[in-house]
Order: sequence, then structure tokens, then C-alpha cells
Amino acid sequence: MDQTRTDYDKFHRKPMQVKDAQRLIAGYVEAGAVETVPLAESVERFLAEPVTAPHPFPRFRRSGMDGYAIRSADTASCSSDDPVWLEVIDEIPCGSVSSQVIRPGTAARIMTGAEVPDGADAVVMLEMTEQQEKDGRARVGLKRKIQEGQNITPIGLEVQEGQLLLSPGTRISAGEISVLATFGIHRVPVYRKPRIAIFSTGSELLSVEEPLQPGKIRNSNTYMLAAQVREAGGEPFILEAIMDDLQLAQARVESALREYDAVVTSGGVSVGDYDIMGDLVRGGGVEMLYNKIAMRPGSVTTAAVKDGKLLFALSGNPGACFVGFELFVRPTIQGMMGRKDAYLKEWTAVLDVDYTKVNAFTRYVRGRMEVRDGLVYAVPAAVDESSVMVTIKDSDCLIVIPPAKAVTPAGSKVQILLLKEGSR
Amino acid sequence: MDQTRTDYDKFHRKPMQVKDAQRLIAGYVEAGAVETVPLAESVERFLAEPVTAPHPFPRFRRSGMDGYAIRSADTASCSSDDPVWLEVIDEIPCGSVSSQVIRPGTAARIMTGAEVPDGADAVVMLEMTEQQEKDGRARVGLKRKIQEGQNITPIGLEVQEGQLLLSPGTRISAGEISVLATFGIHRVPVYRKPRIAIFSTGSELLSVEEPLQPGKIRNSNTYMLAAQVREAGGEPFILEAIMDDLQLAQARVESALREYDAVVTSGGVSVGDYDIMGDLVRGGGVEMLYNKIAMRPGSVTTAAVKDGKLLFALSGNPGACFVGFELFVRPTIQGMMGRKDAYLKEWTAVLDVDYTKVNAFTRYVRGRMEVRDGLVYAVPAAVDESSVMVTIKDSDCLIVIPPAKAVTPAGSKVQILLLKEGSR
Repeated sequence: MDQTRTDYDKFHRKPMQVKDAQRLIAGYVEAGAVETVPLAESVERFLAEPVTAPHPFPRFRRSGMDGYAIRSADTASCSSDDPVWLEVIDEIPCGSVSSQVIRPGTAARIMTGAEVPDGADAVVMLEMTEQQEKDGRARVGLKRKIQEGQNITPIGLEVQEGQLLLSPGTRISAGEISVLATFGIHRVPVYRKPRIAIFSTGSELLSVEEPLQPGKIRNSNTYMLAAQVREAGGEPFILEAIMDDLQLAQARVESALREYDAVVTSGGVSVGDYDIMGDLVRGGGVEMLYNKIAMRPGSVTTAAVKDGKLLFALSGNPGACFVGFELFVRPTIQGMMGRKDAYLKEWTAVLDVDYTKVNAFTRYVRGRMEVRDGLVYAVPAAVDESSVMVTIKDSDCLIVIPPAKAVTPAGSKVQILLLKEGSR
Repeated sequence: MDQTRTDYDKFHRKPMQVKDAQRLIAGYVEAGAVETVPLAESVERFLAEPVTAPHPFPRFRRSGMDGYAIRSADTASCSSDDPVWLEVIDEIPCGSVSSQVIRPGTAARIMTGAEVPDGADAVVMLEMTEQQEKDGRARVGLKRKIQEGQNITPIGLEVQEGQLLLSPGTRISAGEISVLATFGIHRVPVYRKPRIAIFSTGSELLSVEEPLQPGKIRNSNTYMLAAQVREAGGEPFILEAIMDDLQLAQARVESALREYDAVVTSGGVSVGDYDIMGDLVRGGGVEMLYNKIAMRPGSVTTAAVKDGKLLFALSGNPGACFVGFELFVRPTIQGMMGRKDAYLKEWTAVLDVDYTKVNAFTRYVRGRMEVRDGLVYAVPAAVDESSVMVTIKDSDCLIVIPPAKAVTPAGSKVQILLLKEGSR
């Protein structure tokens, strides 16, 4: 690793393995500041404190049916020929608590969700009963033996008091919201969204509003990266593009590193004369972590650190830029919000077609999953040059093709990394 | 269907199949109003117009490397013993266009992403060249035969002019953003977020801020539904809970149906005395579509329509409420934003353990996927009573268990519906 970090020859960079690079970066990632937001605004945020149950849930014996709360022993010998008749001594809507105790020969009308009164040990559903009035008193008739406990949800069925319900770093979705609401957590401690500065480099870039000019292309990576930051849970800040001017670039990046939680750039990382990000990290002021990764696309991805803040210099090729973000920046952003092991989820899949490209480096091929009869197939995008932009939208996974000297045949087991999963 | 819609006997409702109910609802769903938002704000919105390519992409022959633009014929006979030397007549940074034509014996220094000059038919990477000055003129030496077309991305490799790139109803994510930016679409036509009113019913419900009271529970469904609406792409509006008062409820729901695009309620759909949603739809003013679905949980889900607006009365049981939303309300919200076939994505999976519950209705069991050696396993939640709230957060799929009179054994092939997929 020391070799890599001191090898500044831009033609002969020492490539680092993806997992080593991820581990190296992780050493600089810390969960950040915490803020408290109203429950309804906590969706998609990352929880900052553990949530344990302040009480069991259900907290009382809950009726699972509309019907009658009874003592099951009263039904021991009844039948359709010989029904048992119980006196209805109370009516318990949801949210009310009965002051009555169910004694032998009595029952209470009860609603779904209401607290089962003392003495009762079963609820019989309305549809299984007959109602009658006798001497001005309501009675309910049962024709079948009822099991003890029937239609009663016991205390603590779902959750025991003190049970850990949610861990810090959990992304809050509908299910977590339900837990928080159930336990009255209406102010939710969440991690502040990491503020991520985004630059792109290169005087060939037009802003999206500009008309086309010969030889130039529109700056798409900046907007793509902003979307990726947002999807990861961070807050993107698009800063003015860095032109191909080393001093200006250096000043801008250093200022952004002071002001934001991390900086991502695209472009300017390869070996050409006008590539400035490499020069920037070589120029001191920042400590380079790596400047080459043993991967395709995006091998010339660079990462550096200054005063504890991370700088990611991703490839200017859209495909490589996208992949570099998913492998290195997304886990960083989510790690800043307490998520453990924030790397893309990995599955084994069956390669659907021959993969013909060979390489000394591991390839992260954009592709999509298809499940047929229970088996996951990985279908590589038709064109997966690192420069290619149009396949990103159709990809839901990266297919990992290990270094290969020959075709990887259809039917091979491959690892895939899930692109749409990690954010949820 | 007519039978169902006129059968108002609340004890003997005619259950409708899930797919029939979905189809019935779909007949009332139309894509809604369109608004235009800046590109950076279009993430996670639904595109409202088709996007076709106004020009091919790449629009010019693009260099894929830092190196030299050459004529491949010039290298036909060179070797490491007998290099060919070409005169360097220009230097082409990214974004610039050369005024030179590459003629036999000449080359131009060129950067990754720059436009390849006329006359050149290949780019040779910098690392494979030698540089020299002779008589004050720069020369580049090549020792290997170069193939025509090498390191040049041809015009239209990714996208042909006029090609359909994005269809209306597509949810915009990082890849779509990249496409929009590339083609200069900086103001994006998207569907307005459907405004969904949410009520819960029941006087047993405490607001999340209130301290607990005997027999009562906190209102969690409202917040869960709001999160689900948001995840589906809609805008939730939590309205004051409806207490168990039919007239008040009716007035509130009718007012909400006028003001919002759809209304979702939870609770008040079963057969108990205090269940008001059923009475509401039976009371006229709204046309009932169904009041029972052949499914567990949530069979007593009701849907109705008034003046073309949909009302969904979901179960008050959290598990059933969650499932009812995913099957019926989510597709409605996304259909209002032009998404075709907005139902949860369906995969075949292997049931991981015996499923022991039997039922005359299809069960939608909360569970999670595990992929082992390429095979998708479906693992049901340990407790899946319709009332259970705590398993929702741990579920990433619904496992579809068809009507069964006996145990569904581990190893059975089952369909699963992906919960976290549909939103992307």
C-alpha cells in the first residue's frame, strides 16, 4: 500500500484491488452529526440512535375479532343441538376499557383491537354467534366449543419490552415508520445528510443549457452524480465546473473540502497532458490514497484525503464515473450516516450470455437481472465501453467478471452487485 | 362483478380476486397533470413525455484514449526494429476541433474525448509511442501495426438520431438524468405528484405525541401510509383522524375526495358495529367497486369511486394495511404518473421453510429474499398475523401462497412480489 501511495509515476501507477481501496477509504469514514426531525419527515433518512421497545406490543390482550369475549370453559359441552347462552354484561368498543370482569355464564360484546376484559380467555367471532333478548337482558348463544386463547393476541406477541427494534444506520422506510409511530417516537434522531460537493473538469464540457458546439459535449456526469448522491441519502452541491487550470482547480477543490463533507470530481484522472486531478493530488496539500484501481471501467479512479475529508476523483467517462461512485462514494456517504457494511449487496447469478472481453483487471459490467424459475440470470448490457452513458439507465446490477484470458461462457456463476438495493 | 357491487350484506360479502380488483381499479386511473422542473430536481419523478435523441451520440468521432490520431495505413509495415515516424502537426485538447487534416506521414496529439481530425482513422495510446524532435519538428514513433478504427468511438455508437430513449411513465434515476443532460434537456416534463389524502379511523387511536392510555394504541398506519405514498412517488396529506362517527366521516371523506387525487383510509372496514367505512360506501354518494378481496391479510379491503376519484378503505391491521397499499394503492399512484403495469414485480422463488397456515384465500406473506448460489429463496416472516406491525420493516417481498388445504412444503416454487423494486 505504501508503494502505491508514493508511486507518482503517472504512466506506471500501481493498481489497488477494489476491496483494498474500499477498506482504505472506510478508515476515513465516520458517522456524522445528528439532527432531530418530525416523524413524517424521517422517511428515507438514516436513524442515528438505537430504538428499543419502551413497552411490550401489544401492551394488552387484544381482541383479534369483532365478537364476544367469553370464558372458554363455558363452551365445554355446547353443541349445535344444545347451545350455551351467556349474559352480555358489557360492550367494549376499541379504545375503551371494560370495568367488568367476565364471570361464568357471562360475556362482553367486543370489537377488533379492543382490550379483552379480565376473566375472559377467548373471543368468539360475531358470525359464529346468535343474539337473543330474554327478560330484557341481552344474551349470546354459542354452538361450538371454543379453545382458550382463541382470537386473543397475547401481550408482547410482537415485541417484548426492552427489545432492540431498530439499529443506528438503518434507512427509515414505511416499516420503520410504523415501529417509530407505534412506540410514540414522534421526533426522530437521524444523521444529517452528508453535504457532497460535485465538480466536473474539462473545457470540453458545455452546461446542459448551452447549445451544442463542435467538439464539445454536454456535462452529464455532474447531474448524474448529483442524482447518485441524492439516491444514496446525501445532499449534492453542484459547483462550477473546473476548467483545465491546475491552480484554479486546486483552490476550488481545497475550498470545497473545507466547506463540504466530501468532494467528488469527474474527469481529469487519466494520463493526458490536460488531466489535472492527478497533478492536484501529486501537488501536495492532499494525501493520495490510490490513483489506480484494478478494475474496468474506471481504473484511473483516484482518492485522496485532506484534513480528514475525502476527495474522489472519478473518471470522466460516464460509465466509469457511475461505477466508481457506486463502489466507493455511495458506501462513504452511507457510512457517514452510520450504515454498517454499506457496500452494494452481492448475489451469485448465472451469466446469461458469453462475455467475450478479456482483461487483466476485474470488470464491473453494467447489466440487469432476470429471474427465471427461481434462478437469477445476469444479462450484460449490449455495449459496455467505459465511455458509454446510455446503458446506465437500463442497469440494475453490476456483473463482476474476474480477470480472464478467455471468454467467460454463458452459464458461468458470477457475482452481481445490486444497484437499486443499497439505497433502501 | 355486479353481484359484488350490489351485495351489501356485510356478513356475506362476495370476495373478488386480487387481479380482478386491480383491473377494476385500473379502469379509473389516468395519467394526471404535467409540470416542468429543472433537471436537478427531476430525480425520482416520473417522466411525462417521450425523449428521443435530437442527434446521434457520440455526435463526432471521439478519441477513446490520450495519444495520437494517425492513419492506420502508415503503420502497416512498422515493427519494433523498424518504427515508423510521423510528424505531429497538431495538438487537440478535449473540446477543440482541429483545422488540420491528417495526411500520410502525419499525426496529431489528441486527448481522450476529443474529436478525431479528418484523415485519421485510428488513435494510438500515448504509452505505446515514442516522442522525438527532429529539425525542430515534433515526431511520434510507432513500433506496432495499428488497426483501423482503434480507440475511436464512431458517431452514433450509443444512440442514433431520433432513437426513443425514455418513455413517459419512467421513474427518473441517475441513468435517466445522464441521458437528459447529454441531450440538453434541462427543463424536464414530469407528472405532478398525485396528492393523496390519508385518514385513519377509530377512537382507539392516540396521536404519536400523546402518552399511552389504557386500551388505546398509537396511530401508526397513518404515518406508515404516508411513507408508502412518498415511496411510490406521491405526495401524502395526513388529515385529522376520523372518529367513529358516520356523518362526520362521510363529510370529511367527501371533502377530501374533492380536494385530493385519491383518498386512503385505514380501519373501519370489518363487520363490527363501529366500523364506519363500510357504512359510508353503502350510504350512497360513492360507488363501491368491491368490499372484499380473496386474500389474506386484508380481505375486507374496500374500494369505491366518486366523481372519478378513488377511495381505498384499507384494513386497520398494520400488516393488512401495508399489503393492501402495495397491491392496490401504489399501482394507482404510479399509474397517475403514466407508469404502465405498475404492479409489484413478480419473481419465482423457492420457499425456504414449510408454510403451515391453510386458507381458502391466497396469502400474501411478508418475507425476505435470500439468494444462495444463484437460486432465490423466499423466507416468510416468523409471525405474519395481519395485525402484526413489526415484521413489515424486515420484509422485502410478499410471498404468494395460493389457497391451500395442507402445508405448503419447503422447496415449493412460489411467486414473490418485490416490495422495494416497484418504487424505482
